[in-house]
Amino acid sequence: MAQPDFKNFPKLRQKLWVLVFGTETRAGKVFDIVLLWAIVLSVLSVMLESVKELNDQFGNVFAILEWSFTILFSIEYLLRILITRKPRKYVFSFFGIVDLLALLPTYLTLIFAGGSYLMVIRTIRLLRIMRILKLSRYLREASVLGNALIASRHKIFVFIGSVFTLVMIVGTLMYIVESGENSTFTSIPRGIYWAIVTVTTVGYGDISPQTTLGQGLASLLMLMGYAIIAVPTGIVTSEIASAEFERRASESNEKKCDLCGNTVHDHDAEYCKKCGNQI
Amino acid sequence: MAQPDFKNFPKLRQKLWVLVFGTETRAGKVFDIVLLWAIVLSVLSVMLESVKELNDQFGNVFAILEWSFTILFSIEYLLRILITRKPRKYVFSFFGIVDLLALLPTYLTLIFAGGSYLMVIRTIRLLRIMRILKLSRYLREASVLGNALIASRHKIFVFIGSVFTLVMIVGTLMYIVESGENSTFTSIPRGIYWAIVTVTTVGYGDISPQTTLGQGLASLLMLMGYAIIAVPTGIVTSEIASAEFERRASESNEKKCDLCGNTVHDHDAEYCKKCGNQI
Amino acid sequence: MAQPDFKNFPKLRQKLWVLVFGTETRAGKVFDIVLLWAIVLSVLSVMLESVKELNDQFGNVFAILEWSFTILFSIEYLLRILITRKPRKYVFSFFGIVDLLALLPTYLTLIFAGGSYLMVIRTIRLLRIMRILKLSRYLREASVLGNALIASRHKIFVFIGSVFTLVMIVGTLMYIVESGENSTFTSIPRGIYWAIVTVTTVGYGDISPQTTLGQGLASLLMLMGYAIIAVPTGIVTSEIASAEFERRASESNEKKCDLCGNTVHDHDAEYCKKCGNQI
Amino acid sequence: MAQPDFKNFPKLRQKLWVLVFGTETRAGKVFDIVLLWAIVLSVLSVMLESVKELNDQFGNVFAILEWSFTILFSIEYLLRILITRKPRKYVFSFFGIVDLLALLPTYLTLIFAGGSYLMVIRTIRLLRIMRILKLSRYLREASVLGNALIASRHKIFVFIGSVFTLVMIVGTLMYIVESGENSTFTSIPRGIYWAIVTVTTVGYGDISPQTTLGQGLASLLMLMGYAIIAVPTGIVTSEIASAEFERRASESNEKKCDLCGNTVHDHDAEYCKKCGNQI
Repeated sequence: MAQPDFKNFPKLRQKLWVLVFGTETRAGKVFDIVLLWAIVLSVLSVMLESVKELNDQFGNVFAILEWSFTILFSIEYLLRILITRKPRKYVFSFFGIVDLLALLPTYLTLIFAGGSYLMVIRTIRLLRIMRILKLSRYLREASVLGNALIASRHKIFVFIGSVFTLVMIVGTLMYIVESGENSTFTSIPRGIYWAIVTVTTVGYGDISPQTTLGQGLASLLMLMGYAIIAVPTGIVTSEIASAEFERRASESNEKKCDLCGNTVHDHDAEYCKKCGNQI
Repeated sequence: MAQPDFKNFPKLRQKLWVLVFGTETRAGKVFDIVLLWAIVLSVLSVMLESVKELNDQFGNVFAILEWSFTILFSIEYLLRILITRKPRKYVFSFFGIVDLLALLPTYLTLIFAGGSYLMVIRTIRLLRIMRILKLSRYLREASVLGNALIASRHKIFVFIGSVFTLVMIVGTLMYIVESGENSTFTSIPRGIYWAIVTVTTVGYGDISPQTTLGQGLASLLMLMGYAIIAVPTGIVTSEIASAEFERRASESNEKKCDLCGNTVHDHDAEYCKKCGNQI
Repeated sequence: MAQPDFKNFPKLRQKLWVLVFGTETRAGKVFDIVLLWAIVLSVLSVMLESVKELNDQFGNVFAILEWSFTILFSIEYLLRILITRKPRKYVFSFFGIVDLLALLPTYLTLIFAGGSYLMVIRTIRLLRIMRILKLSRYLREASVLGNALIASRHKIFVFIGSVFTLVMIVGTLMYIVESGENSTFTSIPRGIYWAIVTVTTVGYGDISPQTTLGQGLASLLMLMGYAIIAVPTGIVTSEIASAEFERRASESNEKKCDLCGNTVHDHDAEYCKKCGNQI
Repeated sequence: MAQPDFKNFPKLRQKLWVLVFGTETRAGKVFDIVLLWAIVLSVLSVMLESVKELNDQFGNVFAILEWSFTILFSIEYLLRILITRKPRKYVFSFFGIVDLLALLPTYLTLIFAGGSYLMVIRTIRLLRIMRILKLSRYLREASVLGNALIASRHKIFVFIGSVFTLVMIVGTLMYIVESGENSTFTSIPRGIYWAIVTVTTVGYGDISPQTTLGQGLASLLMLMGYAIIAVPTGIVTSEIASAEFERRASESNEKKCDLCGNTVHDHDAEYCKKCGNQI
């Protein structure tokens, strides 16, 4: 993150900015690492609190931890708003909203009970780890994955639509076939739920066909699921492969045209494809 | 859909045609969107009707909704037949048959009970959404997926045949091995059903081997299923990748060099990369 | 199948050869189709016989069917031996052995009970369908799949070996962790069986971890299984893709050298790569 | 393994070195094969010992076998240290550490009970099989797989991170939704465990949603798992494919044309395809 223009900044505010937003200095790094550990511990604390035996024994400890972390994060949040030059931009940025959502649940418990579990939203704050480790490399990889998914969004949309239609029809058929003799297929929505569980090859087994006809239909659905699972894999693989191919192609074709400066040439090019100059 | 020649059409019929079949005008769009919502609501109503608690309480509401939608769709169906110039072509087209099948189940309930669940066939009518959104792009994507599946149909046929033979032999072996000590393997067809559930990695667990020999055999089948699932994925991926490759190749190679006749140019080339001539 | 030299054949034997082994004439085709239906029906009969309710009611029918089909197939087997010119070659060929194995189980039931289920081996005889439909195309596809698997056998061997080592170590660890509190992990072999069920994502649920440590270990194994399943898919896909690529490359490069007749040239070749002649 | 310089070695030590470390001579091969069988038998013995019925009956046999194998391996371990010229290097090598870890558990049982199951670590010693069979080919294949995984480690890291975040959030949501009416979702960690079981498509069924909202959420997670499983497959496939491509490219492009310097030739080319010069 480029350090903003500090001409008119008071000294303290500038120092705090470096501490809270910066990652270059030793102090900035220490701040971020302490923050990450606080996030990890607060999420762990929420999770362990949900285990009845632990809550019975250490209920007070969890309550104290929860409020300590929440107050800590509240101070951090206010600090970020105070020291940044564009508070509005921060508040409505992705991390600004996540930081706020990570605070609210504890305050909500003063009004409703149980809201504290929503604090698990704090896990998203762990994404800050990327900034510390300067994982620009990881971001690039993430963007390759993301682009592959975006590039294949139309195919995925068609695919999800087909799966939904299949699942609705098979789920209804199974309800018609099984509902008489099988107490687990109690309604069409449950039949559709079963069809999704089956076609994705999850297969809990809490709902399973009992009649011969139902088992035959289920076998067909499973074999179709087998073929169907190949489709998203094929789509994503093909996208990733071609994204990789293009990245490599652009890396390797570093021949530069003396005339127009165009650097993207094929490995067997003898003339620049932009200006016609011989390379 | 190209608008037909209306020279000899009466005025009203032409207007209705634009409303019902057209998607260009505002009225045509509104008609299609209302229709889609009616389809979604009628399917939802059928599904919720199958939930016993809801049916006990709102049984009359569902019956009224069902008949309202059916009468609405009947009017729409008759309208389509009346206003189109080639009624026979519409009646025997894919959408014509689906439109009819979506009506019949309700009328059948006057004769049989329970037929109303077949109304789920109405979901197929949702494919009309593609026409509204002018999703020619989606259709192209669907056709890429479809072509990939068609191109690999011989390989898939061989693959399904091999899986079936494997499943029949393993299912029978498991029946022989398990039937003595395990009350869930009651017949060979159930053994085959178990083998399909296992090889597709669904694994309900309602039928599972108990003897050591059976568990060993099951382990082998699972590891084979692991390898086998790679085959359809490999087939489809390879087809999608080559379909993508060809589409891109044909998009980019539209330019031919006048001088040397070289036709393989990048999509952004302005000069031939073989002889340097301007394209 | 090329028809053999019949110079010294008696007339009847030749006619029978065409009927039994041939697929060109109408009579030969009819014989093969009748045979296939007999195989399908005999396999179905064996399967349905294993369903207790059906066997109680139609036990005699199944026994009669079983013996009828077996006698029919025995006659066919003897006929094949008698009319072929090289009986030894047929007897020890793949189909010769399968034909014999499909007969033996019924005769074995005169000595042992229960052997009749081995008749399911008759399903393999269905592979004869390929000869009737002249599915040379399917055989080619099958050989592409087969070659892809053979070409990647070293990678698959390494992969299976790694999975086995992983499964043995995790299965033992789970036995150590769970055996105290969980009655389903009764021995290390059962632990290994559970690990295979989990890593292949089958997940029956008849054996599942109960302790927190065991569930954590199981979660790790599942996530590894997620990554591991990508490996065979990657291997097979890559092999199929390159096999396809080579087949297409050899199909498309039909440029033929006038001098040496070599037809495999790259699309951008200007000189024959075998003899140096300009194309 | 290159045989070390034996100039100053005593005769017996040299002979033992060839026997224990060598694989070239007949004696060296026999030693290795006997060792492998001893490892396999000792691992099998540990596994069968854990089966209660067998342990009750043959407990003494297992104890004797265990100690025999352990003493045998101890002698082998000491021998390896004594005869190698660089004992420290062996002791701290991968196989040196594994050899020691394979011995310790039995001695530990003199102090603790139950430690003997850790002997399963002996399975890792089976990797020595690669040395005997001179499976340099397998090692190369393993390194292709390994490199593919290493090359895609950044993508896999991003992917695992995303899956973890998803699983934590969905697991918590399910706990909030289900905990009231479903006795299987007892805490957030169990919810997360369920989410991992579901998203990896393992699906034991020991924990499964009962409420309509929970089943809807589960359906969404399953469909996401469907899409998500495509990502690691795509990553690994793309890496393996490009690794294969590069290996082939480097194998085939060994020839350089003296005249025009073009280096991209097919493996079977005898003349340059650019200028027709003999290579």
